Amino acid sequence: MATPTAEREKANVWFTDHHTENLTLSFRVKGFLWSEKSKYQRIDVLDTYEYGRILVLDGLIQLTERDEFIYHEMLVHPAMMTHPRPRSVLIVGGGDGGAAREVLKHPTVRKVVQAELDERVVEVSKRFFPQLAASYSDPRHELVIADGYEFMGQTEERFDVVIVDSTDPVGEARKLFTGDFYSKVKGVLAQGGIAVAQAETPFLYPQVTKGLYDVFKSVFGHVKLYLAFTPTYQSGMWGFVMGSDSPLEVDRDLLEERYAERELRGSLKFYNPGVHLGLAELPNFLRDLVSR
Amino acid sequence: MATPTAEREKANVWFTDHHTENLTLSFRVKGFLWSEKSKYQRIDVLDTYEYGRILVLDGLIQLTERDEFIYHEMLVHPAMMTHPRPRSVLIVGGGDGGAAREVLKHPTVRKVVQAELDERVVEVSKRFFPQLAASYSDPRHELVIADGYEFMGQTEERFDVVIVDSTDPVGEARKLFTGDFYSKVKGVLAQGGIAVAQAETPFLYPQVTKGLYDVFKSVFGHVKLYLAFTPTYQSGMWGFVMGSDSPLEVDRDLLEERYAERELRGSLKFYNPGVHLGLAELPNFLRDLVSR
Repeated sequence: MATPTAEREKANVWFTDHHTENLTLSFRVKGFLWSEKSKYQRIDVLDTYEYGRILVLDGLIQLTERDEFIYHEMLVHPAMMTHPRPRSVLIVGGGDGGAAREVLKHPTVRKVVQAELDERVVEVSKRFFPQLAASYSDPRHELVIADGYEFMGQTEERFDVVIVDSTDPVGEARKLFTGDFYSKVKGVLAQGGIAVAQAETPFLYPQVTKGLYDVFKSVFGHVKLYLAFTPTYQSGMWGFVMGSDSPLEVDRDLLEERYAERELRGSLKFYNPGVHLGLAELPNFLRDLVSR
Repeated sequence: MATPTAEREKANVWFTDHHTENLTLSFRVKGFLWSEKSKYQRIDVLDTYEYGRILVLDGLIQLTERDEFIYHEMLVHPAMMTHPRPRSVLIVGGGDGGAAREVLKHPTVRKVVQAELDERVVEVSKRFFPQLAASYSDPRHELVIADGYEFMGQTEERFDVVIVDSTDPVGEARKLFTGDFYSKVKGVLAQGGIAVAQAETPFLYPQVTKGLYDVFKSVFGHVKLYLAFTPTYQSGMWGFVMGSDSPLEVDRDLLEERYAERELRGSLKFYNPGVHLGLAELPNFLRDLVSR
C-alpha cells in the first residue's frame, strides 16, 4: 500500500491508462524518458517503478518492459509452431520490434517483412527498448514504412505466416479489424499459410473479440481463438485469433518435436507446447460466445 | 477514455485499489452502499460502473460482481473434480459465500463446513451479494464463526476437500500461509483428501506463490500449481496450489465423465475439464520457479 514512507522515498507522480471510461490502471512514474508528436500519434516513453520502461501512444499503454514477453510470445509462437516450416513471415504493425524478435527465434525463418506505418515508433524503440528493437539489425528483417492495409494490396510476395500486431480498433487501426483487410491477408498467404491477430479483451469487450473471430470465420476455413495473460492490458485476459485454410490442430508430440528442433526453450519465458494447447482451451463463456 | 461528456453523465468519484505501492487499479464509483468497522476490519460495499458491486476489506478489493465467477470456480472445481466423490468439504475463510456456492453445485456433497472469522462479512454479503450468499441457506451448509487456524486444531471431523479462501498474507491471514497450518489441514483430511488454496499472483509476487508451493511440498506427497485469470486482482494472473497424499493427475475422459455426471455445465461460466487441464500447463517462468 502507498504509505507516507513510500511518498518520501519515491516521486508521487502517476501515469494513468484509461482501460475503459470507468476503469484505470496507474503506474508510479520515475521519470519521462521521451515525448514527441509524430506524423501519426503522440509517443511517450516513461520509466515506472513497477513495470520498468513503458511505451505510450496517444496516451494509451502499448507495452511495458516487464510483461511484454507474454503478449509477444503468445502473439507469435502458436502460429509459428502450427506451421511445419515457416520460412517467410509478414508482420503488420508491431513497430516496437517485439513480434519480429520472437519470429526470428525460429531458425526456419529466411525473411521477415514488417509493414509499420510510423517510422518514429521504430526509432524510439531502437533507442529506449533495445531488447525489443534488436530484431531490426537482423539481416533477415526487412522494414517497410507503409500502411499495412495498402501494403497488402501491392506486394507480390507470399508468406507462410502473417502476424497482425495492431493497436486497438480506433482511428487508423480500425480497418485492420475488417473482412476486407483479411481477404487481402489471405491473398498474400502461401499454400498452408496461417494468419494471426491480437483480438482485444474478450472479458471486457466480448463483442470486439467476437467481431474479429467472425471476420476470420468469413475468410478462412479453419479458425481458432486462444487466450493469454496480459497484466497491463485491460482485464488481463487477452484474445488472439488464428486462421488458415489448412487445419490448425496440431498434437502435443509434434509441437514438442518442433520446439526441440527449433531450440526454443532457452529463449522463451512464457510459451511452451503445453501452454499453446492449454490456452486454447476456452472457458465456458467464451465457448458460448464463439459458438453463437 | 474519460471524456468531458463522461464526466457530465457520471460521477467523477473513484475507488483506488493499491495493487502494489507503485501500481493502482481504480474503479469509477456510482455510490456507497455500505460501510462499517467490524471487530476485525473495515468493510465497504461500493457500486461501480465497470464491475458492478464490489466488496472492499480494509481498503483492498475482495471481489466484484462481474468477475468473481472466475476466481471462485477456479478455486473450487479443480480440487472437487479431482476427487472421485467429494462428500464433506471444509472452507476456511470465504465469508462472501462464493466458494460455498461453487462447492454446493456438486451433487455428491452432503456437508459443507465453513470456518469464517468475521460474521459481519457474512451478513454484509447476505444483504449485498445475494447471488454469492445464497449458499448460506442451503441445508447442507454449516457456518462456524471461528478462526480457521484454531478450528483446524479442534474439529474431530474429516473432510474430502479443504478449501482455503484467504485474504492476502498480511495480518491475521499470514498464518494461513505456513507449514504449521497445512499440517493441521492435512490432519483433517479424510483418506484421499485434497487441499487447495489461493496462492496470490506469481507474476508480481513469485516469492509468495513459491513460498506457499514449498509449504505444500513439505506437507503433501503430491502438489500442483495452476493459474486463473483474475481481472481485478493484481496482474490478472492468479495462482492456486492443490495438495494431497494421493495423486492429483486425472485424465480428460474421467473429468468429462464427472462433469457430465455432476451436471455442472449449465451452472458454470468459466470451468470445464479443458480449462482444468489447460491452466495447469505452466509457462516457462513458472515451471522454472517451481522446479527450483
